[in-house]
This record gives sequence, structure tokens and C-alpha cells, in this order.
Amino acid sequence: MSVAERLIRFSETAQPTPLVREIFRLSLLDWSACAIAGASEPVSRIARDIILQENHGAAGGDGARASVVGASSRSPARAAALVNGATSHALDYDDTHFAHIGHASVAVIPAALAVAEEVGVDGVAFAEAALIGLEASVRFGVWLGRDHYQQGFHMTGTAGAIGATLAAAKLMDLNAEQTGDALGLVASRAGGIKAQFGTMGKPMNAGYAAANGVEAVRFARAGMTSNPGALDGLNGFAATHHGACDDTAWKGNGRDWLFETVSHKLHACCHGTHAMIEALRQIDAADPQRVEVYVHPSWLTVCDIAEPRTGLEAKFSLRLCAAMALTGWDTSALGTFSDTACADAELVSLLDRVQIAGDDTLAETAARVRIDGVEAEHDLNSRTDPDALRSRLSQKAASILGPARAANLVSAIENGVDLSAFTSCLRGL
Amino acid sequence: MSVAERLIRFSETAQPTPLVREIFRLSLLDWSACAIAGASEPVSRIARDIILQENHGAAGGDGARASVVGASSRSPARAAALVNGATSHALDYDDTHFAHIGHASVAVIPAALAVAEEVGVDGVAFAEAALIGLEASVRFGVWLGRDHYQQGFHMTGTAGAIGATLAAAKLMDLNAEQTGDALGLVASRAGGIKAQFGTMGKPMNAGYAAANGVEAVRFARAGMTSNPGALDGLNGFAATHHGACDDTAWKGNGRDWLFETVSHKLHACCHGTHAMIEALRQIDAADPQRVEVYVHPSWLTVCDIAEPRTGLEAKFSLRLCAAMALTGWDTSALGTFSDTACADAELVSLLDRVQIAGDDTLAETAARVRIDGVEAEHDLNSRTDPDALRSRLSQKAASILGPARAANLVSAIENGVDLSAFTSCLRGL
Repeated sequence: MSVAERLIRFSETAQPTPLVREIFRLSLLDWSACAIAGASEPVSRIARDIILQENHGAAGGDGARASVVGASSRSPARAAALVNGATSHALDYDDTHFAHIGHASVAVIPAALAVAEEVGVDGVAFAEAALIGLEASVRFGVWLGRDHYQQGFHMTGTAGAIGATLAAAKLMDLNAEQTGDALGLVASRAGGIKAQFGTMGKPMNAGYAAANGVEAVRFARAGMTSNPGALDGLNGFAATHHGACDDTAWKGNGRDWLFETVSHKLHACCHGTHAMIEALRQIDAADPQRVEVYVHPSWLTVCDIAEPRTGLEAKFSLRLCAAMALTGWDTSALGTFSDTACADAELVSLLDRVQIAGDDTLAETAARVRIDGVEAEHDLNSRTDPDALRSRLSQKAASILGPARAANLVSAIENGVDLSAFTSCLRGL
Repeated sequence: MSVAERLIRFSETAQPTPLVREIFRLSLLDWSACAIAGASEPVSRIARDIILQENHGAAGGDGARASVVGASSRSPARAAALVNGATSHALDYDDTHFAHIGHASVAVIPAALAVAEEVGVDGVAFAEAALIGLEASVRFGVWLGRDHYQQGFHMTGTAGAIGATLAAAKLMDLNAEQTGDALGLVASRAGGIKAQFGTMGKPMNAGYAAANGVEAVRFARAGMTSNPGALDGLNGFAATHHGACDDTAWKGNGRDWLFETVSHKLHACCHGTHAMIEALRQIDAADPQRVEVYVHPSWLTVCDIAEPRTGLEAKFSLRLCAAMALTGWDTSALGTFSDTACADAELVSLLDRVQIAGDDTLAETAARVRIDGVEAEHDLNSRTDPDALRSRLSQKAASILGPARAANLVSAIENGVDLSAFTSCLRGL
């Protein structure tokens, strides 16, 4: 069976479990909090301004029904998907799936949302299609394999475009043949390279993936044909883009949901500090004297700034992040990591009591800590209880948006997605 | 010097020769004839309908100044570039550059034209920028090397996007830093795979290249930053897309113009028959008795249908094409290759007198013919006298558009490009 056929069959027959539906709602909450908070970032502002300017005049027309995060006027679906993809990835604070190393939500959710608004479906259909696109993007990324990422491709953009296309195709009610054409068309456009990392080009990769998925589906619905074998066939996407074509990726597809183990960032600092912070939170230490932290040695060249002086350096300082966690600072808030924090007397006095060391028996996603002899360990890859996760993500949303806006978001999502209330939150109304 | 720096310096300092300016005008004539004739193809109609529908309402706005081939209403530049790129490549009758094996004009000219209309420059500035983009796309394609194409990438889309970006950046008057950002941004989007060949996805690759170039430039002008090393650096375009990074590609850049040797299709049939037709035209044979044709053996599996029965088969029949050339049929007209032609008594009676054979001492672009002992040879790669080429391309335009429309096109271009008259021809007004 070709990859396109697998994806189409999955889209037609998938029955999400209650657990994965719950995890999706949590990812949706997290995605939208990151998007709303990211709307004032330069890359978001530029993309939004250009797109709204280009479509000025279209705002009143039939073609402009999709919400743009941070804007009161609406836009055509492709354009909204482009802006919202970039905006939600601008802070790099959105979810990650480690099975393929990609930010799944920022490519798929903007495409699904824009098309859902364009065709006028309800929140149930939106959630179902988005979830199918998310699972498809992770599976497709696993099928592409690690070499694709190692050679320089940004999975968020490449695998993301496939998921975005499948979600959009489901919402536009494409038949199997049309969906095959859409997947074939997007095979020429699924892209994004890691050379963009550290620049505004990185969040744009998510925006392109979302927008290209929407456009491929619109063209295919109107009768544009392509080669449904363009993902896995001769001269196709995998052949040209260092794809491993690992068919074990499809094992359990439709029954097991890889998306259940999506990982949410709970701290506004370098990912390499997160497992340590989680481990430290497990120990009740009123006045710690000696704090030992063990992480995988690869992090020692990434986030081990011993005496940070700026907010940016603070995000890459295991020692300062540990001191913050020990003294109850809110590490989920974007403003926590400031120049001022680096000079805070209580934090500075703690720094000398924190020792960082590498331990190559630990996974890259794990940390072990010892506070005055009491040990704890955490692995980010471990499954989190949905109730605990909901509480943490609500708290994160409140930290970055303020309690009132976070509460509005939560209420628009918690009993199934109310698309009208949800998009009002996104637009800032 | 990085590739982006080379391209920027080239764009800033290039002084096209009179010859290459003349060749550009001929390519522009040929591009527009192919585009106007291609506007009724299904892929063109679908792309045009979707884009105009999406931008419905924007037509009267400030953002919609760019002409769409075959449409009376205008559209935003990105959208026009997308449609016009696909439309001009729909018939696969547009120019080719064999140095990198790409269709240069269909990616670069639509981008340059759309931006020229958006910013309101004159035909001189449009032509200069388009020519610079065209040369850049060919050089960049040579720098990428043959493996990039062999592995499955469609040079028209990949190298085309770079040329489209450089042309659009020049027209939008970006400074060097902004142009570097635009090239960096498009490095994530330059794409297109050969799996699309034989489907509507193929012409779309040209449209994507043009549209992505326009969009990258708009974003960069508004302040979006990227990595100017994303073409040739770590995790960059060449590293991920099988690029050879052959720096000999830049030899003579700015002084010599590779675009001077662009090749135009003069016959509406398989490229493998063209050298033979040109060679046959050199011999005056009133009543040929024995016609021997030698081509590179690779063509014998491509276009050697001995007794064609349909219009499509006729395009892939060296024998029938030879018979047509010998009896004065207009092989540049799209309608020539019909089922009726296959049954034409005069042509059929000639078929038995034509013998086709392979000769591996010939280049793939060459053919040798012998009519009753008189020999002639032609290589498509040989340089054509511009006056002769102008006459042939005007005749081709007349064959596919009719004499009146062709004459309007020629007059809009021949004394420098009159953008207003030229775009009126394109819109069909």
C-alpha cells in the first residue's frame, strides 16, 4: 500500500480514543496560548501586516472567513494558516513530538482551523480533522526517519505539511482520489530547512506548511490532478529528501495514537533544563544546602551558563533555573527570565550550592537531582496524567496571557471546542 | 564569498549586453505566447479560478495590481505570479536552458512581472530585473549541479525560485541585507520534484517558484530576517537538496551571459524530434524518395512511434514529424498534431520512405539527415542568429495565437517593453 493510500484510509476510518481526544484539547489550549502570546513578536507582526495588506478589500468578501491571531479582520484560509502557523511558533514555546522531533501543532492546527472556518463546520469536526492531521504528521515523520532531520530538514515544516494537508482535506470533504491529488501536490512544497534556526525563518517553516496544505487541498478539490505516488515513488518526496521509508512507522496506525505522547513545554527556558526543573519540583526542600544535578552530557554545551547576566542567558543556565525552581519562581512565565532575575540576591546566593554534572547513562530527555541526600528523577518522555497536565497547562496559559484571557480560552475548549468563542479569543476580541 | 553575496553583487552591478537583452525580449515574446495559449488548459483554469475566488473583493483594493493571464480582473502579486507561472508552463512549450536543464522563464518572468506591476515601474526596469533573475537561476542551477536533477528535483522549481526572488528583490529595491534575508527565506521553499511530471503538478512547480519568490521578498522588505547562509551553509539548501556546490558556475558571472544560449521550442512535438525537423528544413527536397534520419539512440525509446494513430502519438513519431516537415506542415502550431493528420494520405505515403536510426556519436540535442544523398545536420545547442530566431518565434506566436494577437504582442515588446500594452495582451483585452 502506498503512503498516500495509508494516510487516506487512516483519515477515513480513524476512531480517536477518549484519551487522545483529551490530549488534543490540551494541545489546542497550549497552541492557542502560545499563539496569542506570540502575536506581538516581530515575525508575527510582519507576516500579519503583509498578509492583511495583501488581502485588504477581501476582508468583506466571501473568500475571507478565517481568523488571524491578533487581528480583528479575517482573511482567506491560506493566508490565515500562514500567519497563524508562524505566530504560534514564534516563541518556540509550543508542543513537540519526540518520536520524529517535530512541532506538530503549529503546522496542523492553523491549517485545520482556517479551513474549518472557511467551510463552516463545528468544533467537533474541526477537532477530529486536526487530530487526524496531527497523528498523520507524526507517523509520516517517523516514516521519514532520523536521517531526514539529521541532514538538515525541519520536520515541523516537512511532516507538518503532510498532516496539514490531510486535516484540510478531511474538512473540505475531499474524496479519496482528490485527497491523493492533494498529497501529491503538496509533495512538491513540503519543505523547510534547519538553516533557519535562530532566525525568523524558523517559525515561518510552520506557516508555510500550514498554508501549503490548505492551498493543495483547494486546488485538488477544484480538479487539479497530481501523482499520488509523489510521496514515496520514483523522483518523489522521500527519494529526494533523505527519507528512510521506514514502514514500521505504520504499525498500529488507526488503533494506537502516537500523539498521546506529545510533549508540552512547561517552562519558558531551554528544553535542556526542563527535566531538571520537574525533578526538583518533586522534592520539598525549604533551605537546601547542597543541590546536585545530573543531565545528559550533551546539555553541558547547550545550557550550562554558570553565572548568567541577561534574560537570554538565564534561559540557558541550568544553575539559575534550578535556583528559580527551588525558590518558587514561575518558570512558565515569559517575563521570569530577565536581567533583573540574574541579579536577584536570593537566587545568586543559591547558585553556589548548585552543582551541575553530566551522566551519560541518562537519556537526553531525563535528569536526576539530589537535594541534601534526597534523590528524584524525571524523564520528559514519560506519560503524564491528563488531569495533572491540564492543571499545568492552564497555569502556563495564565502565566503568559493573564488569568482572565486564559480562563476564556479554557472555557472555549473544555467541553468540546466552541469555535466561535475560541476564535474570538484568538483574534483578541 | 557566499552564494547569496555573489547573487546580490551580481544583481547590483550586472550590465547586460545588447545581445542578451535582445534574447530576453525574444524569450518574453515566447513566454507570453505560451502563457496566452496555455490559459485555457485545465491546470491554468483551476489555478486562476481558485486564486481569483480567494481574492474576490480584493480586486478593487490597493493590494491587487498584478495581471493574471486570461483574466480581466487583477490580483495581488503573489497570487498572479502563482497562476501565471503555472499557466505559462501548462503546454510545456516554453523555453529551456540546457546548462542546468530547467525552464527558466516560467518561474522568473511571472514573479518579475507581478512585482513590476505592483510597484509601478516601467518596462525597462522590469526587463532588467527579469533578465538578472533569469541569469541567476541558470547560474544557481549549474552550481547545484546535475545530481540535484538526477536525484529527482525539478530545476524549474528550485533554481527558478532563486531567480524569481532575485528579480523581485531588485524591483522592490531591497538593499543587500534585505535581499540576503529574502534569499534565506526562500531557501526553505525552493522546491519541486520530478514525480509531478506528466501531471498538472509539473506546471504548478513553476507557479510555486514564482509565488514563493514574491512572498519572500515582501516579507524581507517588511523586516523579516533569515539566514543569508541558508543556500550554501550548514543545514542549508544545497546540503539538503543534493547540491554539488560547483563554484565554477560563477566563472565569468556579470560579464558572460549564459542566458544567451537559452533554447526555444519551435515545434509543438517531442523535443527529441526538433533537431531532425531543423535539419530537414535545410534541404530543398521537392519529391524525396529516400529519407534517412539519425538521432542519438536514447530517443528511439521516446519518440519513434512508426505508425502513429492519434494526435498525441503524432508528437512522438519521428517518422510522421519528418513527413510533416518535408511537406510544409506547420509543426509550430498546436493543432497540427491531430488524429486527422495521422490519416492524411500524403503524409502516410511518405512514411515508408523515412528511415530512423540511432547514432551514438551524435549529441542528444543533434540529428543528421540525408535526403536522396544530400546531408544536413543540426544541434539545438548551437547559437541561433537573433534575427532568424525573432522571425521563427514571431511565426510560432502567430501559429498558436493567430496573426492579430501575435502582432499585438510583438509590437508591445519590440521597441522595449511597453508594460501597459503587454499586460493588456496577457489579460486578453
